[in-house]
Amino acid sequence: MNAPNADAAISLRQSHPVPQRSPVVAVVGATGAVGQELLTCLAQRSLPAGCLRPLASARSAGQTLRYGDSDLTVAALSSEALEDADLVYFCTGSDVSRHWVPVALQGRARVVDLSSAFRQDQTVPLVVPEANGAVLTEGTRLVANPNCVAAIAAVALAPLQRCWSITRLSMATYQSASGAGAAGMQELREATEAALAGQAHTPRVMPHPYAFNLFSHNAAVDPETGYNGEEHKVIDELRRILGVARLPIGVTCVRVPVLRAHSIALTVRFDSHVTPAQVRARLSDAPGLRVVDDRDANHFPMPSEATAQDPVLVGRIRSDLGDPSGRSIALFLCGDQLRKGAALNAVQIAETLLAPA
Amino acid sequence: MNAPNADAAISLRQSHPVPQRSPVVAVVGATGAVGQELLTCLAQRSLPAGCLRPLASARSAGQTLRYGDSDLTVAALSSEALEDADLVYFCTGSDVSRHWVPVALQGRARVVDLSSAFRQDQTVPLVVPEANGAVLTEGTRLVANPNCVAAIAAVALAPLQRCWSITRLSMATYQSASGAGAAGMQELREATEAALAGQAHTPRVMPHPYAFNLFSHNAAVDPETGYNGEEHKVIDELRRILGVARLPIGVTCVRVPVLRAHSIALTVRFDSHVTPAQVRARLSDAPGLRVVDDRDANHFPMPSEATAQDPVLVGRIRSDLGDPSGRSIALFLCGDQLRKGAALNAVQIAETLLAPA
Repeated sequence: MNAPNADAAISLRQSHPVPQRSPVVAVVGATGAVGQELLTCLAQRSLPAGCLRPLASARSAGQTLRYGDSDLTVAALSSEALEDADLVYFCTGSDVSRHWVPVALQGRARVVDLSSAFRQDQTVPLVVPEANGAVLTEGTRLVANPNCVAAIAAVALAPLQRCWSITRLSMATYQSASGAGAAGMQELREATEAALAGQAHTPRVMPHPYAFNLFSHNAAVDPETGYNGEEHKVIDELRRILGVARLPIGVTCVRVPVLRAHSIALTVRFDSHVTPAQVRARLSDAPGLRVVDDRDANHFPMPSEATAQDPVLVGRIRSDLGDPSGRSIALFLCGDQLRKGAALNAVQIAETLLAPA
Repeated sequence: MNAPNADAAISLRQSHPVPQRSPVVAVVGATGAVGQELLTCLAQRSLPAGCLRPLASARSAGQTLRYGDSDLTVAALSSEALEDADLVYFCTGSDVSRHWVPVALQGRARVVDLSSAFRQDQTVPLVVPEANGAVLTEGTRLVANPNCVAAIAAVALAPLQRCWSITRLSMATYQSASGAGAAGMQELREATEAALAGQAHTPRVMPHPYAFNLFSHNAAVDPETGYNGEEHKVIDELRRILGVARLPIGVTCVRVPVLRAHSIALTVRFDSHVTPAQVRARLSDAPGLRVVDDRDANHFPMPSEATAQDPVLVGRIRSDLGDPSGRSIALFLCGDQLRKGAALNAVQIAETLLAPA
């Protein structure tokens, strides 16, 4: 294993980097919805195009992707393409990650994997930098990027958990089409267009009609618990990120006809009495969050204002009337599924990982 | 006051009635989304067109409404139009109801009011027939029809409350455009059409952009609790319907881009250990419900299958992993906002009210 690459660290942290040696940053799955958003995040952070190596399946090789003012040509994923990389993002499904992440680690690269392949591997840190970035060390070679709902929720929950002990979570999600990738977003547009024209439309990506409709998340349902795979990810990953191994979490994951921002209705129980004012003050100071909680104007977090934005929006901060003990607070969150739910968080992981100690 | 009209009772209860004297049934607000759905419900129950008197504001008078094979002409609301009615449905806003319900009661009519005007009047029964139809008596002249979310939830909660004592509810809603009437549904269609065409659209009915977006329910927010008017209705009305005066209920009401069926993610806590199998068995037998809970096929309640249907769909029946005591059950409900959430429930109230003792 090589030591962490200090050049890469510096160039990624500076907004106008003057790298001594340009680090090689590979993005596997660059043509997908998350891959493209990751390129957008890197361009906004002024990573030079010369550093970037977009990779995808052989089928997508040769495609051109716009990056800032440059055009990048997509290459096919191969051992050779990974071997001299300093940093590799895997914006791929877990099967691809399971095969290729070990290949990338044979070189000198540090790896941020956005799939679920390594999220339950206790030797691999699962990180939302605002919540548990401190677990990353100089020796960390592989980091798992969490599920989108878990990442968005963790940004709001971590600062609360630092002040008061969280003893229970109850969540209902409103998840966007982008969770099923570019094809999911396209299906929502096409199905809606057909519905408005009074035409039939056969779902290809989603298991149910999507136009003006919602449905339980399409991950397979565990016959034992009745919870689906998405819900189990949220539970398992939030427990890891918040560092509370057996935290009771109830969650219902629902796909709604929204393009690319997830919303979450969330109730948090603490081990002591906590007021909405205390929570509001704490969240107002916390990184990665924007409080949108204007009761007079009826203005709260919504996907139209979270889309293509970095911060997670939080509002509807109030005492949970379902818990007369005064220990529970209700919140409503909204975060871009492709940004904080995926690409942005991965870039922030890399920045934390490569930051000079 | 007159005695209940037995003819009306018989004609409304029989699917092919042969009334001795046709009762006069007035529908105030007949041109609105709920009013029109009420006519659909009455036509499906074969109430003869000759009995029906559609009423609306002077502005809408003279319009023609299709009713089964007949055309009905809308008349202007007036004292004269109410005076000889046997039964009056008010599908109107609460201001209109507050003024005109007392006028209707001066005649011989029994009144079902669908507005919120009388829902918190403890002398007026607030009824979901499957839950508390028994509170209606021969002497009942005025009945309040509940808020749509409360009505849909009550159908699933009442049979559970009869078996086990409910001690807490936690709800997040996914409410459709129809809750804001025909204009709300039209705005959703127009805003979405504009978004797909890449055109701007200015909201007129909703406070926020509606295309592929969701937002906190637009009812005014109580500065004290932070809960909005819709959420307070759900809390107050469910307590009345279930007969548990201080039941702790936490609820977050959200408007989603769906046309006419509401969904509810619901967690119910009981005073004892209850299994999903027990709940499923109880709900399978209960009136007004259809269990849609196929874990293998990932087939659960959704608006596309609840729309224009009478039963409330219930599924995702499972133990709440957020409550390790084993006393909480999670459910997902979906019911047509215009049917069980409004018109159908009102017709069922009238049928119960007018049923021969």
